[in-house]
Amino acid sequence: MTHTPLGPGNEFDHIRALLERWGPLAEGIGDDAAVLTPPAGQQLVVSTDATVEGVHFRREWMSARETGARGAMAALSDLAAMGATAHGVLVSLVVPDEWRALLPEFAAGIGETVRAASARIIGGNIANGAKFSATFTVLGFAASPVRRSGATPGDVLYVTGTLGGPVAALAAWERGALPEPRARQRFLHPQARLPEGQWLAAHGARAMIDISDGLAADARHLAAASGLVAALEVKNVPHFSFVTAETALISGEEYELLVALSEEGAESVAAAFVRRFSLPLTRVGLLQTVLAGGGQFPNSSVRVELPGGHDHFSR
Amino acid sequence: MTHTPLGPGNEFDHIRALLERWGPLAEGIGDDAAVLTPPAGQQLVVSTDATVEGVHFRREWMSARETGARGAMAALSDLAAMGATAHGVLVSLVVPDEWRALLPEFAAGIGETVRAASARIIGGNIANGAKFSATFTVLGFAASPVRRSGATPGDVLYVTGTLGGPVAALAAWERGALPEPRARQRFLHPQARLPEGQWLAAHGARAMIDISDGLAADARHLAAASGLVAALEVKNVPHFSFVTAETALISGEEYELLVALSEEGAESVAAAFVRRFSLPLTRVGLLQTVLAGGGQFPNSSVRVELPGGHDHFSR
Repeated sequence: MTHTPLGPGNEFDHIRALLERWGPLAEGIGDDAAVLTPPAGQQLVVSTDATVEGVHFRREWMSARETGARGAMAALSDLAAMGATAHGVLVSLVVPDEWRALLPEFAAGIGETVRAASARIIGGNIANGAKFSATFTVLGFAASPVRRSGATPGDVLYVTGTLGGPVAALAAWERGALPEPRARQRFLHPQARLPEGQWLAAHGARAMIDISDGLAADARHLAAASGLVAALEVKNVPHFSFVTAETALISGEEYELLVALSEEGAESVAAAFVRRFSLPLTRVGLLQTVLAGGGQFPNSSVRVELPGGHDHFSR
Repeated sequence: MTHTPLGPGNEFDHIRALLERWGPLAEGIGDDAAVLTPPAGQQLVVSTDATVEGVHFRREWMSARETGARGAMAALSDLAAMGATAHGVLVSLVVPDEWRALLPEFAAGIGETVRAASARIIGGNIANGAKFSATFTVLGFAASPVRRSGATPGDVLYVTGTLGGPVAALAAWERGALPEPRARQRFLHPQARLPEGQWLAAHGARAMIDISDGLAADARHLAAASGLVAALEVKNVPHFSFVTAETALISGEEYELLVALSEEGAESVAAAFVRRFSLPLTRVGLLQTVLAGGGQFPNSSVRVELPGGHDHFSR
């Protein structure tokens, strides 16, 4: 669909500059609202996520382009965690004066991510303000969205990918050092596991969450949502060689998927996943009934009450 | 639908406090994304809008509760302008330390608006940051959304309500005075014209926009979207007695509707609207073909190229 013709004005000039950068990736911009036609029999899945300068990123860590790409990817990851497709993205920007010249590069980064996800930019908002922030609202579709709450006692927990990159990159920057290249790459260029999430949804995923707060914290979120407790086997956590398994447990902003599967058949599902995506899918624990006074857990497991992940309001 | 059980953590504690304030107005919070089932045969309409401290409001002008109510209302107004229902709202907050104690009141204001619109709060995000901002994403449904671009030459322009309150309130505050009570009321408690927009969509609205930038600017936006020019008859602009018609033309953040109707039958539609809603619906101009060198316009009309409305990037 073509865009609605825009009138004159500075705000529209900014929007025109963004649209020029996005080209055919932006669709139907310029009306009061975006219109989309849900496919028959599908449910709409929608989520919103913000990236705030000085909180989620610092300018010296990454370019404007990387910031845009990463912010959009983090938002799309929530669709992956529902097993949904990515359809459309709305971009709401608060822009201080010193950021105006960076907007085209920031937009180019958003465009990279949206293209990779086979989605479109369908709307947004732009306002000035003292601190830069971008709020991404993402919309997709799923016949049967996978919630956090669908796990049952005895289900096993698997995680995609290899953990620990983001926490190592942040630790290096915080002490003024350059991160190990693979750590920097994992922090700056996370991948929303959209096809993987859809595949898992179609292959028996009972509950799913993306790892934004850290494996330990997100396993706790999934378990709490399902009315269960999670026991993680630390020695099994897939991690880069430059971090320990214990550190990988608390590495946030990974955007890998943690999925609960029925124990029966889980191994063959995981093997098929690895063949399909050439990405590890590793068993890291199981879910158990909450027992008064604490249950029995396998050796070398942790109750996920243990280490906390990233929490925006922890200090 | 009940909420997904939330795990421990400060961020979740803040969310729990908001949910407590919202009660049954919030639905299905706590998963990676919200899920909704589009009604058969309806299109999804979605828009996003931000309210930023120091840009869209100042603390001394309004309470946290009024700020929340007004921000959500401004976002919902975009659904009204499409002739859509209001279904769900996602609230993304950036919260500095000094705002944390105000969050329950801000949330209560959002709740008032969402209740009045018969909508629900279906998701959101919370992050800390140096400056308070709230981004509202609103979702609704319409069988045939009314776009800005559907007007044809000869269509007449009507506006709901009485204009000029917000510009008068802002002018008073800017000079350190107390606004006239009706002006303050119109600025702080605008009404998203949702039932009115749905009714107009069902009674021949060809194009529609809500007045956020001022009647003159928004008439220009609607005309540009339809490939036309708008001629406004200044003497007909409905305005409060404490402002001139010329000032009412540039009063932004009104959230009244400007609608293009076929000239034939427009008068009887307007009469039926006034009976139905006890709200003025006033003819303010017409739409004409763009003529090279400028067209002929009725006496006492302005080409809407004249006064600009509010533009976030004008200084």
